[in-house]
Amino acid sequence: MAALPTIDDVARAAQVSRQTVSNVLNSPGIVREQTRTRVEAAIHELGYRPHASARRLRTRKSFTIGVALHPFKNGISGNVLDRFLHALTERADLRGMRILLYTATDAAGEIEALRRLRDGADVDAFVLTSTFHNDPRAEWLIAERVPFVTFGRPWGIPDLEDADHLWVDVDGFAGVRDATARLLEQGARRPAFIGWPSPSGTGDERRRGWQHATADLGIDHLHREVEDAVAQGTAAALELLSLEDAPDALVCVSDSIALGAMMAASSLGRHDVPVVGYDNTAVAEAVGLSSVDQPVEEAASAALDLLFGATGNDARSREAVNEEPRHRLLAPRLVERAWTNLAPGETTGTANAGNHNRKDPS
Amino acid sequence: MAALPTIDDVARAAQVSRQTVSNVLNSPGIVREQTRTRVEAAIHELGYRPHASARRLRTRKSFTIGVALHPFKNGISGNVLDRFLHALTERADLRGMRILLYTATDAAGEIEALRRLRDGADVDAFVLTSTFHNDPRAEWLIAERVPFVTFGRPWGIPDLEDADHLWVDVDGFAGVRDATARLLEQGARRPAFIGWPSPSGTGDERRRGWQHATADLGIDHLHREVEDAVAQGTAAALELLSLEDAPDALVCVSDSIALGAMMAASSLGRHDVPVVGYDNTAVAEAVGLSSVDQPVEEAASAALDLLFGATGNDARSREAVNEEPRHRLLAPRLVERAWTNLAPGETTGTANAGNHNRKDPS
Repeated sequence: MAALPTIDDVARAAQVSRQTVSNVLNSPGIVREQTRTRVEAAIHELGYRPHASARRLRTRKSFTIGVALHPFKNGISGNVLDRFLHALTERADLRGMRILLYTATDAAGEIEALRRLRDGADVDAFVLTSTFHNDPRAEWLIAERVPFVTFGRPWGIPDLEDADHLWVDVDGFAGVRDATARLLEQGARRPAFIGWPSPSGTGDERRRGWQHATADLGIDHLHREVEDAVAQGTAAALELLSLEDAPDALVCVSDSIALGAMMAASSLGRHDVPVVGYDNTAVAEAVGLSSVDQPVEEAASAALDLLFGATGNDARSREAVNEEPRHRLLAPRLVERAWTNLAPGETTGTANAGNHNRKDPS
Repeated sequence: MAALPTIDDVARAAQVSRQTVSNVLNSPGIVREQTRTRVEAAIHELGYRPHASARRLRTRKSFTIGVALHPFKNGISGNVLDRFLHALTERADLRGMRILLYTATDAAGEIEALRRLRDGADVDAFVLTSTFHNDPRAEWLIAERVPFVTFGRPWGIPDLEDADHLWVDVDGFAGVRDATARLLEQGARRPAFIGWPSPSGTGDERRRGWQHATADLGIDHLHREVEDAVAQGTAAALELLSLEDAPDALVCVSDSIALGAMMAASSLGRHDVPVVGYDNTAVAEAVGLSSVDQPVEEAASAALDLLFGATGNDARSREAVNEEPRHRLLAPRLVERAWTNLAPGETTGTANAGNHNRKDPS
């Protein structure tokens, strides 16, 4: 390994003291801007890199965020959390922070992993995903005063406004409400909803959105609850479309179910029935399904904002700022497509065109 | 953070020297059992946690593997590398190792990231993905003697047997060769191939597989090269199926192209034309496409075996073992499905059923 420039080399080049260089690295706010600029220029020119482990020892900061990577789900919607991880890694990088992955098979195992990483000073904060009713991970982190934020609201915890629990989430209620309203605007009078069995935090929110948008239409009974599978969507849609007072549009809680519903409508020759899914997956894009898109990139930014403030990477100092918002509920957005172009015999090849430019996958 | 107990606190409580505490932590075998028990009790009582950064500085080992997370591709096949990352994180965990993610937008930027992580002693080794022709990242790592393995063979480097470059890859040649042979076995006589434009490391390998399987059939001309998009697959399949000597089966380099080809065949009422894709994505599962499945879990295990040996987590010691294999080429496996069940008017809902059980995505 070539001899690396030291903090003394930087101090000499910038004509400041060693302490000033250290201040620029650790508490830039206390250094005059002119001096800071000069020191930063010298750091850049010399290629000086403070030794990460030494700096961690000094500052008790690792500039690292812990994120659990749960077993892979190869479902159609399974990649929402992977999209979030990508976005989080990129956004963290802009703040000079990295992501450390860990695994766990259940909540108890995950708390053990959190404890080990905290004890080793391996991470400064955690970003948790896949929140659920009575999530013990959040309780443990709050009790231990470890900075964290969840992607997913604290389902089942009475006080969503709890100042100790930072969270960011996507407003599934608004997403489905607005998608349903859009169908009504386009002439639908009887849009049905195919959802997940209750109770389901996100599923119930989405169904509430449909209920809200259709409250005045007298079609409260036009909803079904099925497991998240293509075949289940097909079966539910076939049954709904065979009713005497059949729906004229199908709003679905997921793209898996929407794909099944689309196949059902297609098999009945009902290319006039619009179908809307949720998560705007690659499948929806490929087959031309309208779908509600979760703004995961925005969610990743918001998670870091809640932890560290609009800039910077110090969770502890952020924690002291009491008047800042503790939660962010983001609005999703409907991506409209015309699946009926899939109808056999009609022109294919343009409207359904995803643009999956990609070579050499491995 | 409350003041944490120090090694001196432990020494005082156990009535031993600081060095003895250090020995208990780092070389317990040289400490008398009675003393060790006393020190361990004090460590436990005080809640002393040897600082990970201090240990890293001392041992120069972080028990951490660096992996780049490249910008998310929401294409149909985009999740193969995410599947690999999940598998790698789980397998590394079994060896007491974690994954540190970093980002980079190009090879030069990635080398900068590699250098920073190496300089900071943040990682012990790297796992690189998305290898390409004349990959400068591998050259840099070899020159700097940093342990690494690539998921993807060193395309374009003359000596695939280079002992300095550990790699694991999936044999796309064999995958497509065997899938094509299976179609011939089932009665196809003119299976065409829709691939990516050459040169493409993985794409060319897959086309060679089709060429090998069809060498005696006099159908060398029945292949097309298109960008990886659903619409391109549709266009190529429509053109091929309109030929006088049209193919009777379509082998595709990706599931995106296969989906487009399937839609083309469907639009022509040609439900008798089998279509095979590659990567066995959620889309293939959802619409019932046959597809070649990459064994990414096996690839993750093999990558760790190459870096660290069958057990353990010491890349440096592994490096010294010269007689061990340096490469692993894994065989993919065809997953057969019957997409023709998608045909409108026929029964739907069972053969196409993916089992995407999933609730509360965020």
